[in-house]
Amino acid sequence: MSDQERTISQEELVVLQKKFSEIKHSINNALAVMMALSEMSQRRPDYSEKLASTVLTKAPQIVSSLQEFTQALNEKAGPKPEGIPTA
Amino acid sequence: MSDQERTISQEELVVLQKKFSEIKHSINNALAVMMALSEMSQRRPDYSEKLASTVLTKAPQIVSSLQEFTQALNEKAGPKPEGIPTA
Repeated sequence: MSDQERTISQEELVVLQKKFSEIKHSINNALAVMMALSEMSQRRPDYSEKLASTVLTKAPQIVSSLQEFTQALNEKAGPKPEGIPTA
Repeated sequence: MSDQERTISQEELVVLQKKFSEIKHSINNALAVMMALSEMSQRRPDYSEKLASTVLTKAPQIVSSLQEFTQALNEKAGPKPEGIPTA
């Protein structure tokens, strides 16, 4: 069947929704830690090293989890058509 | 019609895919800036204030853009059913 005819079911969409919700929670938690350390480092410079090392650990995890969701979405939607601007 | 019968078309899914791709690019860019500043602040402590203020500016923007995508997804899937664990 052609791409135009493909649909995804409500159930599949709920699976994507749940997956995104989990990813969002874990990203929000990581960002909350970074923000707390940023505020602390503004008052106590000895927190700066902790802030830098936390960002360098957690930011790549955020990139990975976004990429993981892209893959889940692509499995349902098919690879993103070329020619669609992404930025 | 019942929730079980609802489907979304390939076209709608491609719209979600494109939207997520845009959000992911902008988040990845923000994280790349934070990581670069973290590396710099590990070598030059005078970058620590810039790192902290950048995290405090960009992290809430990331939270907002994830929330924006949640809303786009919920518009297609309906509100997330209660009782589904999210973390």
